[in-house]
Amino acid sequence: MLFICIEMVGLIAGVCTTVAFVPQIFKILKSKHARDISLGMYVILTTGIFLWMVYGILLGRIPIVLANGISFVLCLTVVITKIRYKG
Amino acid sequence: MLFICIEMVGLIAGVCTTVAFVPQIFKILKSKHARDISLGMYVILTTGIFLWMVYGILLGRIPIVLANGISFVLCLTVVITKIRYKG
Repeated sequence: MLFICIEMVGLIAGVCTTVAFVPQIFKILKSKHARDISLGMYVILTTGIFLWMVYGILLGRIPIVLANGISFVLCLTVVITKIRYKG
Repeated sequence: MLFICIEMVGLIAGVCTTVAFVPQIFKILKSKHARDISLGMYVILTTGIFLWMVYGILLGRIPIVLANGISFVLCLTVVITKIRYKG
């Protein structure tokens, strides 16, 4: 029961930190502007999220792997849209 | 040895996903502009990071707790600076 509760917190956390990048991607695509967004932040963040995914694989914790795997793709999308719409 | 390696990956991941927000905060403070930044993203992200911290506490994994604790403060700082410099 406690195990299910812990994994549930991880799952909700994972959904939040994954879904979070979607409004940013839509905002950039809609406005075609990404000047205020820090490229440095997203390069470091994408690297960090990739490493969290590796950490999850090594621990065998599915919520960490899943959440960070999707976050990695979305965060990389922000990097690409930022480079595309610099101005 | 394997345990140390796993915790080391978590530690580097934690440093990356924590430090990442610093260039964004400096960029906003320097330019006094945060128009392109999605408030929705940072509100959801701050909530998610808080829950990852709780997940780390429940699992007793120090790298998860430490990294997400500091990330939470930094992410909240982006929320505050975004509200301050909307235009």
